[in-house]
Amino acid sequence: MLEECLRNVRQKHPLIHCITNYVTVNDVANVLLAAGGSPIMADAVEEAAEITAVCSGLVINIGTLNAATIPAMYAAGKKAAELRHPIVLDPVGAGASALRTKTALDLMAQIPFSVIRGNISEIKTLASTAAGVNAGGTQGVDAALSDAVTEDNLHEAAAFIAEFARCHHCIAAVTGRIDIVSDGAVCYAVTNGRAEMSRITGTGCQLSALTAAFIAANPDNQLEAVLTAVCMMGLCGELAFERLGAQAGNASYRTAIIDTIYALGEQALSGGARYALL
Amino acid sequence: MLEECLRNVRQKHPLIHCITNYVTVNDVANVLLAAGGSPIMADAVEEAAEITAVCSGLVINIGTLNAATIPAMYAAGKKAAELRHPIVLDPVGAGASALRTKTALDLMAQIPFSVIRGNISEIKTLASTAAGVNAGGTQGVDAALSDAVTEDNLHEAAAFIAEFARCHHCIAAVTGRIDIVSDGAVCYAVTNGRAEMSRITGTGCQLSALTAAFIAANPDNQLEAVLTAVCMMGLCGELAFERLGAQAGNASYRTAIIDTIYALGEQALSGGARYALL
Amino acid sequence: MLEECLRNVRQKHPLIHCITNYVTVNDVANVLLAAGGSPIMADAVEEAAEITAVCSGLVINIGTLNAATIPAMYAAGKKAAELRHPIVLDPVGAGASALRTKTALDLMAQIPFSVIRGNISEIKTLASTAAGVNAGGTQGVDAALSDAVTEDNLHEAAAFIAEFARCHHCIAAVTGRIDIVSDGAVCYAVTNGRAEMSRITGTGCQLSALTAAFIAANPDNQLEAVLTAVCMMGLCGELAFERLGAQAGNASYRTAIIDTIYALGEQALSGGARYALL
Repeated sequence: MLEECLRNVRQKHPLIHCITNYVTVNDVANVLLAAGGSPIMADAVEEAAEITAVCSGLVINIGTLNAATIPAMYAAGKKAAELRHPIVLDPVGAGASALRTKTALDLMAQIPFSVIRGNISEIKTLASTAAGVNAGGTQGVDAALSDAVTEDNLHEAAAFIAEFARCHHCIAAVTGRIDIVSDGAVCYAVTNGRAEMSRITGTGCQLSALTAAFIAANPDNQLEAVLTAVCMMGLCGELAFERLGAQAGNASYRTAIIDTIYALGEQALSGGARYALL
Repeated sequence: MLEECLRNVRQKHPLIHCITNYVTVNDVANVLLAAGGSPIMADAVEEAAEITAVCSGLVINIGTLNAATIPAMYAAGKKAAELRHPIVLDPVGAGASALRTKTALDLMAQIPFSVIRGNISEIKTLASTAAGVNAGGTQGVDAALSDAVTEDNLHEAAAFIAEFARCHHCIAAVTGRIDIVSDGAVCYAVTNGRAEMSRITGTGCQLSALTAAFIAANPDNQLEAVLTAVCMMGLCGELAFERLGAQAGNASYRTAIIDTIYALGEQALSGGARYALL
Repeated sequence: MLEECLRNVRQKHPLIHCITNYVTVNDVANVLLAAGGSPIMADAVEEAAEITAVCSGLVINIGTLNAATIPAMYAAGKKAAELRHPIVLDPVGAGASALRTKTALDLMAQIPFSVIRGNISEIKTLASTAAGVNAGGTQGVDAALSDAVTEDNLHEAAAFIAEFARCHHCIAAVTGRIDIVSDGAVCYAVTNGRAEMSRITGTGCQLSALTAAFIAANPDNQLEAVLTAVCMMGLCGELAFERLGAQAGNASYRTAIIDTIYALGEQALSGGARYALL
């Protein structure tokens, strides 16, 4: 299943419209190319809908949103919805400012996201603010330690994330030490990945873009497509780490992860993926 | 000739004003530094003309254009024209949206570009839209396969590109598997480069900036300067590929290309360049 | 002292709000993560003050300033001042345009910067323009050769920089072949670093962000914190250069410097730092 999802990305080369932050945008473009997709970045409202129309998927990442790019998010999102393209939301820093929280929630109210991918604090913020209280412990763009999904709270966290997915009619992909992927009915826990990935800026942004490519190339297996993207990012984080030299740091690691995504074989993916149905 | 063009870049350190997309901007800056030039990025209309005035060349790349940066393109372009600085246009994604196509054509109508460098689909779009029909097959920011310049259609493609250059009073540099460089009278085909370069975001943007540096440092040999930049980018793509390790992917390749540009000797350039007069 | 300053960054993980240019922003984020800090980029005026409030330091870098981001600089700067957070100004390209010079000076008039870090031409521009004449020889974003701090003019340059620090009630960190760090009373010269670092875009931007992290983590030893950041950046430039392969260029060097910052031990820092009280 994972093999087929990856094969479809490499065969179909999905073109993904990215409205994404300028911090990690280059890595987002290169990771899409590494996986077999193709990126186009466009955040001017004058062209957002038109660009989306020639693509097969859209990712909206609110990392460095501003008054000029927010209208482009709506224009692209509405056009993508009209064309039934898959749409991924990455609510970077929801909870860190009212602008981010409000923009994410407003987008969610108006655009039928296929996937919402964030860290647990961002998702808690969105869930609780929508419900009228703010329980997320977002610290800048990182999750709060106190929010972390662990073995101890795994089933509780999974139930919360499944409820979030049901409530927002989407697939929720919540990443951290343990990743949870749920469409509201089924719930997977993924244990691929390494803690050191959080010392590289943008691995989350990269995963959100990958997710859009995987779902665009696998429209009939959306949950599996998201699961595959999540496993692949984590697994490539592991494999890349193993081959780092003694003097490597986060900059080499960043390069190695994208390289690993470029080269990963289908069987290496299915053999290395660690996920379980909850 | 190629050796002298490169030597001039390294001796004169041309300062290049880049109004360029935020996706590949860091690589554009580093490739200019690698070649021996110097970059300055400035896209606020309030300073665009003034920045251009202290530089010796300008590159306008419409990759992530928006309502705020388009006026800066005009301001810088008009000042550069007034000062007779070389100006390069990279019409990234022309054909992918009306905003991009129209902006590129409007810029071409008002600014005397020294060089227009794009892929074949972008150039076909500009040529045909200017003539009232749209024949370009742009797919996002990549050329359509059906547009590709090959051995079979080489002379037809070269004639088209030379006509484009004559019509727009510029040097056209159209890159792909075979690159064509023409000032309307003379036409070169360049066969340096590797297909894998298209799996890295921004090699085209990098070449456009390099072209500006080469032409700024070689004002009396503009066609040769452009030819040298095109050969150098492709050759460095070849040399960098040869020394990649077994586990390398597009991220390492990106680093290796810029490194190779940094270190390329003049004789290695003239020895490795593969171009022919058509 | 240097060891303790670094240890505090790694133990406290200061979250730094960066309003910075889009050219080098990814390296700025990764260098903060490498050192032990954490970055958040936000340049929309609607959220700038709120983001600053959840951080422990702010860096304002005017590298690609525009009409939308300048108000965010004021909003963040004023909130940071109110909260007594350390604030670093990097006046990239001051002297290259009136917009940059004026914005830097206006910011300095309204915001109590803890540190101003720039090259000598930028600082001369700010000092002389504030005094009604323009003596800085800024060339794009690089210092003019004629402005360089050398062994011959070291004491004269140090006196000028100390006077600048006194006049603007800040710590001045002026980097070049010899770096000068002064709070107006005490003055250090730092000779770490390599000339090749200027062939990488953004090492200055990276240092400004590092400086914010070091001062945020060492509020009671601000001058030492800045000195430590300056020594560390230069030393890592030296150590990274030593382990570059024969075919490396500026792109590999960029990666190696961030890697070295990631891995640098406290004793390696104190052992390798080269600074002297003037």
